Amino acid sequence: MSKQQRDALNRMFRNLPFSIEGDPAVQRAAMEAALTAAPLPPDVTVTEGTLGGIPVVQVDVDGVDTSRTLLHFHGGVYVLGSARSSVGLAAGLGRHAGVRVISVDYRLAPEQPYPAAVEDALAAYKGLLANTAESRIAVSGESAGGGLAAALQLRLKEEGLALPAASVLLSPWTDLTLSGRSLTGKASVDPSVLTAEGLKTRAYDYLGGADPRNPEISPVFGDLSGLPPMLIQVGSHEILLDDALRLAATAAAHDVDVKLEVTAGVPHVFQAFAEVLDEGKAALASIGGFLRAHLADASTD
Amino acid sequence: MSKQQRDALNRMFRNLPFSIEGDPAVQRAAMEAALTAAPLPPDVTVTEGTLGGIPVVQVDVDGVDTSRTLLHFHGGVYVLGSARSSVGLAAGLGRHAGVRVISVDYRLAPEQPYPAAVEDALAAYKGLLANTAESRIAVSGESAGGGLAAALQLRLKEEGLALPAASVLLSPWTDLTLSGRSLTGKASVDPSVLTAEGLKTRAYDYLGGADPRNPEISPVFGDLSGLPPMLIQVGSHEILLDDALRLAATAAAHDVDVKLEVTAGVPHVFQAFAEVLDEGKAALASIGGFLRAHLADASTD
Repeated sequence: MSKQQRDALNRMFRNLPFSIEGDPAVQRAAMEAALTAAPLPPDVTVTEGTLGGIPVVQVDVDGVDTSRTLLHFHGGVYVLGSARSSVGLAAGLGRHAGVRVISVDYRLAPEQPYPAAVEDALAAYKGLLANTAESRIAVSGESAGGGLAAALQLRLKEEGLALPAASVLLSPWTDLTLSGRSLTGKASVDPSVLTAEGLKTRAYDYLGGADPRNPEISPVFGDLSGLPPMLIQVGSHEILLDDALRLAATAAAHDVDVKLEVTAGVPHVFQAFAEVLDEGKAALASIGGFLRAHLADASTD
Repeated sequence: MSKQQRDALNRMFRNLPFSIEGDPAVQRAAMEAALTAAPLPPDVTVTEGTLGGIPVVQVDVDGVDTSRTLLHFHGGVYVLGSARSSVGLAAGLGRHAGVRVISVDYRLAPEQPYPAAVEDALAAYKGLLANTAESRIAVSGESAGGGLAAALQLRLKEEGLALPAASVLLSPWTDLTLSGRSLTGKASVDPSVLTAEGLKTRAYDYLGGADPRNPEISPVFGDLSGLPPMLIQVGSHEILLDDALRLAATAAAHDVDVKLEVTAGVPHVFQAFAEVLDEGKAALASIGGFLRAHLADASTD
């Protein structure tokens, strides 16, 4: 695939007009503006609503099977981002998998630290489960949302609730103790807004005094046994590379079906830039195949 | 997929009539007999020959594109196994990828320790490269052969030779220092002939006094940068699980495109039993898709 595309994306990443440090209110607005600047394709319908009492944004691409749902958790280091800021990515996921996507507006730190996000994820999932068989539900998330999608599954296990049929984690942030070697090893090649210092600030905000080794906060330390098939994607130019690698290793040790896809030379959540990056398109296609294989449809019910 | 199938396979594994310990001559014969007992499908043509002076077995399934070749290295802890013992697996790989497979009879320890296997792999590869564009060559291997396929690529880099277009490593043995935690952690669930004690014996045989941290012996310690896309498959019920996980992590750190597929609850080189295990069929299908995506064909030349 194209080095030119990757170089252009790197330049764009380095010029993003927001930061994970600084005043959350200011950065939230800047991130939302940047990530929603591109118009959605005309065949995408976005509907605001609530699910289990939690605000959500429903994303339907024309022609998808709306009886199958991907419950998606946005990124933003638990402090930034919104259901709406992930709609472009959600539309890509829904299009490739042929499913409805529901993007969840979980509460953010520092105003609402852990466990607010996990509780909101759980409430939305329970709301969905009330009218959808678990065999037709998958969960996904990018960055902090990937960690949250894993944390949700640990909570579901603990509460004895039905697990989803599969999960898809894009560049997940899975270790808020920040012990991954890639935090330093990949710092010089990661063009994203993520920095070890910024992650430290936002981990502090999200923890609100909780132990970062709590598996609902850092699922890399969790007992992942019993989780459904998991697809993890990450770029090799990410300070969070090790968060993905170690989650895959932990899942494998715990006898989970896990696919890990590392794409060389691309940055954090590169799938959101599939329009301008062949690697992003290929990654979405792979997610689509994975979800089609694991979600029940009319022929398997 | 079927627990019944997995249970049957586990029983078969536990009853295999050979061991990686004991007299190599006796175990070689027993392994060859066990692995070649099943008749090949009638559309498979097996031809013995040489490549670069190395004995090989060429495996063509009717209808494959014989201009594209998968150079395959069999398993057997560098002491057992043969090009012929892998023909069943090779036929499955060739069928799913639509390519010719050439299985290499590299020299074995203890009679011929390192670097004999790497030198034979190199000679066979150079023989193939003499009449095939590297864009039409992939390399693969199972168990020790997976480690050898990685070691070969390190040697190719060192010698400035053209790398293959992709590699596929099945349950690769990548660490002859035997430092993986799964060597103990998965011992109770691994039904295969592999044991930590047996691996220690055979590592000693293969090393012949060499340093097990040599990357051509233990590619997990190598500089994998520049290697082509790599697909690693492993079962979660393997004492060699960590060898696969750590090779994937090293490759990712070195900016290699790497896909890792961990299949839950299945044993060592389960793809060789695709006829009786749905997970094996699915894994071969995934390899087929991977190789079709990365090998050049008439349309891309």
